[in-house]
Amino acid sequence: MGNLLTSPDVFLNGIVVVPGARTEHNDASALGIPDANYERIVRKVGVRSRPVAGPDQYTSDLAFSASRALLDARPQTDVGALIVCTQTPDHLIPGVSSRVHGLLGLPNDCFVIDINQGCSGFVLGTQMIVAMQRSMASHKSSLLINADTYSRLLRPDDVTTRVLFGDAATAAEFSTRPQGLRFRYCRSFADGTGYEAFVAHNSAVRPDDQPAGIHMDGSAIFNFALRCVPDAIRIALDDNGLQVGQIRKFIFHQANRFVTAQLARKLGLSDNQAPDNCEYMGNTVSRRPCRFCRRNRWRRSNAAIW
Amino acid sequence: MGNLLTSPDVFLNGIVVVPGARTEHNDASALGIPDANYERIVRKVGVRSRPVAGPDQYTSDLAFSASRALLDARPQTDVGALIVCTQTPDHLIPGVSSRVHGLLGLPNDCFVIDINQGCSGFVLGTQMIVAMQRSMASHKSSLLINADTYSRLLRPDDVTTRVLFGDAATAAEFSTRPQGLRFRYCRSFADGTGYEAFVAHNSAVRPDDQPAGIHMDGSAIFNFALRCVPDAIRIALDDNGLQVGQIRKFIFHQANRFVTAQLARKLGLSDNQAPDNCEYMGNTVSRRPCRFCRRNRWRRSNAAIW
Repeated sequence: MGNLLTSPDVFLNGIVVVPGARTEHNDASALGIPDANYERIVRKVGVRSRPVAGPDQYTSDLAFSASRALLDARPQTDVGALIVCTQTPDHLIPGVSSRVHGLLGLPNDCFVIDINQGCSGFVLGTQMIVAMQRSMASHKSSLLINADTYSRLLRPDDVTTRVLFGDAATAAEFSTRPQGLRFRYCRSFADGTGYEAFVAHNSAVRPDDQPAGIHMDGSAIFNFALRCVPDAIRIALDDNGLQVGQIRKFIFHQANRFVTAQLARKLGLSDNQAPDNCEYMGNTVSRRPCRFCRRNRWRRSNAAIW
Repeated sequence: MGNLLTSPDVFLNGIVVVPGARTEHNDASALGIPDANYERIVRKVGVRSRPVAGPDQYTSDLAFSASRALLDARPQTDVGALIVCTQTPDHLIPGVSSRVHGLLGLPNDCFVIDINQGCSGFVLGTQMIVAMQRSMASHKSSLLINADTYSRLLRPDDVTTRVLFGDAATAAEFSTRPQGLRFRYCRSFADGTGYEAFVAHNSAVRPDDQPAGIHMDGSAIFNFALRCVPDAIRIALDDNGLQVGQIRKFIFHQANRFVTAQLARKLGLSDNQAPDNCEYMGNTVSRRPCRFCRRNRWRRSNAAIW
């Protein structure tokens, strides 16, 4: 489902990332898991350490910090929409976006909502924001905040997930102001038959016959990604009459280095075309890996960029 | 923030509601609260009984039933977007929309996401869906499912909330097909400073120093509604050059009869202009009170309507 309407143009004007306050290293003593093999973990998934939320730091705190920093860098921003993407809200009721709206002191004439999405949350959130911006056709900006504290849902003894996920937030500003990256195209795919492959048991209202916390079927997800992501990319390129070689950067969801490297290999990408930043960030879920911003023209904007 | 773009037109083609499998009456013995006064409750909030989810019925089950019924009534529907609005998901990860997408066997080329919103969830969800439809400009339909099982989060001994909330789901189809109700206008307001007035404590990842479950500051919410809702309605009327007397029906969120009656009085509406359906449904959160459909032109559509 492409966004066939292309007017008005919408731009990603800037982005800020705030990592969790603590750093957790992937060695056995830091993890408290005696048989965790640091060298093997680093070789396999490419993650040496990850940011983790502080003891009193929740998703709304990370989300607020990132959006506060973004707005401090642009005090004139008139926010017309605030969307928070999270799977680890402070509460089921109300949404994290409500708390952030209140803490930022934003105007009442504002569209405020939470969305729930994991790895694809920046892309789907962007698609929503762009649709809203086009529908509004106003001078106002939209903020997309991606914030998660998966550490609250990880099972401490599950080394396969512990070593991957980090806690962080990004705040991104979108508007029709021609500054930053212009949104060109998006097409989303979904397969709900894979529901069981990644579940946080006993995390909301359904009681499960399993220990509480995140259960990941790593090989099912890996096979799904390797089967479906290259096809999705080829469809996107075909829709736009482009070839792999014409694309400067493919910014994959930073699942882990093993996954991004396999995807790059399957698509025939050079190392330069498929950068990763897992090493000291891990997989921070839907947060866009904006560290890459430094190397491209986003840097020319006035946004505070981490 | 009005939707200034009005093209292409988007229509609400049909809507289906599925109530929870059980019925809970608001008398002391049914509630198990000895000092609950049935007559006083009915006089005050106008709720005699409410649908409540069955023991093995969760939000995704209600959401699936409603959307299955909608699609059975229109087997040719080509679904391009599926948005589930809920505050009581089965799990924090993945979203209810993922499970529904899988159970319905929808195509992979589909935008699938959960949104989290309470009372205003139908309105905000509609605004999102309309923006998506306009951005897509395709022949595909979007489904908006509003589903909640607040009964899982209510504190059994809290009579002020127990007697209000019911469990139910609606599935609504939107498309550019000119059938049903045409979307005209929407403008959303928010005030995140009221976060504490309605919180489900210990419901997600933040631990609270309060008993688990929904805590409602009823008078704060009532005062907020009476202060802000009439102003919002007047702004909407002004934006469209309309007067109160020119509107046939004001379909309020069915908080309870006390609130809707006070709002109607403050706006000077006739009983006929402000119908309610709390009596046997209670407040089923973001679900649109589509029982009113029977009395208006929606009935002429082919949608399965409860």
